[in-house]
Amino acid sequence: MAFEITEDLIEQIENLIEARNDVAILELLDEVHHADIAEIFDEITTEEATYLVKLLDSETTSEALMELDEDLREDILDNLSPQEIADELNELDTDDAVDFLSELSDEIQKQVIDAIEDEEHARDIVEMLLYEEDSAGGLMAKELVRVRETWTVAGCVRKMRAQAQNVTRVHSVYVVDKKDHLIGRLSLKDLLTAEAKSKISDIYIPNVDSVNVHDSGEDVARLMQKYDLEAVPVTNDSGVLLGRITIDDILDFIRDEADEDYRMAAGLSQSAEADDTTWELTRARLPWLVLGLVGSLGAVNIMKSFEGALQVHPELFFFTPLVAAVAGNVGVQSSAIIVQGLANDNVTGSLWLRLLKEISIGLINGIALGILVITFGLIFGFGWMLSLTVATAMLSVIIVAALVGTFVPILLNWKGIDPAIATGPFITTSNDIFGILIYFSLAKLMLGF
Amino acid sequence: MAFEITEDLIEQIENLIEARNDVAILELLDEVHHADIAEIFDEITTEEATYLVKLLDSETTSEALMELDEDLREDILDNLSPQEIADELNELDTDDAVDFLSELSDEIQKQVIDAIEDEEHARDIVEMLLYEEDSAGGLMAKELVRVRETWTVAGCVRKMRAQAQNVTRVHSVYVVDKKDHLIGRLSLKDLLTAEAKSKISDIYIPNVDSVNVHDSGEDVARLMQKYDLEAVPVTNDSGVLLGRITIDDILDFIRDEADEDYRMAAGLSQSAEADDTTWELTRARLPWLVLGLVGSLGAVNIMKSFEGALQVHPELFFFTPLVAAVAGNVGVQSSAIIVQGLANDNVTGSLWLRLLKEISIGLINGIALGILVITFGLIFGFGWMLSLTVATAMLSVIIVAALVGTFVPILLNWKGIDPAIATGPFITTSNDIFGILIYFSLAKLMLGF
Repeated sequence: MAFEITEDLIEQIENLIEARNDVAILELLDEVHHADIAEIFDEITTEEATYLVKLLDSETTSEALMELDEDLREDILDNLSPQEIADELNELDTDDAVDFLSELSDEIQKQVIDAIEDEEHARDIVEMLLYEEDSAGGLMAKELVRVRETWTVAGCVRKMRAQAQNVTRVHSVYVVDKKDHLIGRLSLKDLLTAEAKSKISDIYIPNVDSVNVHDSGEDVARLMQKYDLEAVPVTNDSGVLLGRITIDDILDFIRDEADEDYRMAAGLSQSAEADDTTWELTRARLPWLVLGLVGSLGAVNIMKSFEGALQVHPELFFFTPLVAAVAGNVGVQSSAIIVQGLANDNVTGSLWLRLLKEISIGLINGIALGILVITFGLIFGFGWMLSLTVATAMLSVIIVAALVGTFVPILLNWKGIDPAIATGPFITTSNDIFGILIYFSLAKLMLGF
Repeated sequence: MAFEITEDLIEQIENLIEARNDVAILELLDEVHHADIAEIFDEITTEEATYLVKLLDSETTSEALMELDEDLREDILDNLSPQEIADELNELDTDDAVDFLSELSDEIQKQVIDAIEDEEHARDIVEMLLYEEDSAGGLMAKELVRVRETWTVAGCVRKMRAQAQNVTRVHSVYVVDKKDHLIGRLSLKDLLTAEAKSKISDIYIPNVDSVNVHDSGEDVARLMQKYDLEAVPVTNDSGVLLGRITIDDILDFIRDEADEDYRMAAGLSQSAEADDTTWELTRARLPWLVLGLVGSLGAVNIMKSFEGALQVHPELFFFTPLVAAVAGNVGVQSSAIIVQGLANDNVTGSLWLRLLKEISIGLINGIALGILVITFGLIFGFGWMLSLTVATAMLSVIIVAALVGTFVPILLNWKGIDPAIATGPFITTSNDIFGILIYFSLAKLMLGF
């Protein structure tokens, strides 16, 4: 069933492009899905991809361009004239067309919009450029099927034929009143199973979930997931139906959000990707590394202030990376579980209970690890007192790190800040410092120096 | 539009339950969406939730139970008789019914299946219990609309009315031959816009993506995302149509996968959640902490073997947590970006180029951080030679950590192992050890001890 992209196929395509054998290319790529065409673009040079974009029909190439990485798409668009870009846009739903356009310079944008044949499509695109990219307005498409409550089923089906041609996939039919206010919906299933003479007003479902054009993408994603919606209509403040958002657009949005959280937990800036340039990747990483380094330099200063210990128990210093590592690991675990819990809405119960829970978990983990450390210490000749000191310090550090890891994200969330920033380097670094400070303070108390 | 669950509402519901005021409860919760009912279950006691499950109609409560956390659902089911559970299952699609059933003990399973009224539904459920939970067979629902190629559009619409009543949402109509082999599909849009007398064989689309019943959930998710499918038919080895998988089931699957990767990166076992018990959370964390500890104990031994340095340059030991932290941070960054790149299929180009890229990024980051360390060292009186040693060691450690972080996941992926396990504690711990070894070896060479 799946079309497979092999090295042979790519070579064949490259040879055909070089030979300018358009007939053979068109035959080879006939009926190939746009997602596969996009993968082919990924494998060949920008010039070759441009050649294919100009050669193949815009219906396929426009969708293929949408699937591409932004950078590659921009490179290809640079090789096209405004008229050629407009031809691609003609084939796209308004939401995709707008994503496409917003990457171009203002001047080229204007030329492209002027070159779009379908004036209504152009007007819709201009309107949509005004909405924030991640708002319901930025995510919606203008293409949808709308029917009046006063129509009959038979008349409705007739009128829908015309509308449906512009809509890739009909999810729901939206019912509006005379002033285009959204008043309900109709499933295609209901329409199929209704009598031809029935009035729409008799069969439509008046209860319809909708979102406001200014709602955030997060809110739309949450609503669609909660109620398992495959499409949701978008209205303006007075309830006029403006467009609809489909689940596939939201799926991309949800994946992007998850990817972003993952990157934050790893200490990467938000947009980093494996195929970015060296320079982009450096910029994505360096700020977090500097943050970590500054924290560690703080830890160096703390140790320096305890240098008296060097005379009495220099072995204490062998254990600092261990204490720091345990603090870091515990902090990341606690914060990750809370960040995910907050995202999935399953942080339940009171703060006191959570505090008690974290302390209990910390105690159990700390005692288990402590026994391991003492055993190791005795076997490798570090003596009772030192091993016990390390184990005790580790236990305290584990509890403190768990509390910091748990409550910093809760606090951020409560203040309306994305708790995901509290994972990764931020929490490891601060726990490193706390950990080392607690470790040496306790050691000083227990061993005396 | 959204129904809001306030503390007042919960209190009102609890009071009505206590007063056994069924009429008022039914009126209050009439037309409330099952996702909201599920949220109410989350807020009240298990006994109260059980009371509501028995009171409200099964169509709502069965879907609400599906939305709940597994633990809570099990608690409620424990309070229901097999007949009552069977009533709930009657209202669910086969895929959900199977998820539901598979959580019960074998004995109760049997009693429940015997109590299901609709025999065909029961047979379908028994068949589906045989498939792996995360395979296409485990994810599919048996409910779908199928038509024969020999029917006319008018006849097809008539027959579909009967079938469609069992199907919550009709995505596509699947076309089969006499032996039930899948041969194509028909969109509802096409059906609406076709002439009543046309034959299905004239209007159906013979090109249909499908998956095999034994395909993995990952493969299904990849296919549906790549081709933006909202439903995909499932066939057996001889091409017989068995069921269909819809995008909302896959959406849950994709989110679960992302959540799992996130947890692995944080060093948590796969199923950990914020509202698990203390004991479950301890088990989710402890193994990773022990792994980290064992690694750190290795690092302690390495430092012990360099204890000669204590006499000459004890300050070297102030910098070990710093070197370890940098190694850990760089390792996590590199591995996260590769793991995500592998998941999203954007790790392109040759291994040599990637090697070169990682080395370049490492050099730039290393030099930038090195300058910071030297500045700090000079200001705080650690002297030229020591500062330079730390900076040089850090540069080498950054490059090694980046290479380990990049190539371990690539290697695992190549061997068919989930590369996500290489993130988090695994990479930080191994980089800690490498980092400290490199640091002291270089210091010995540069400072001589």
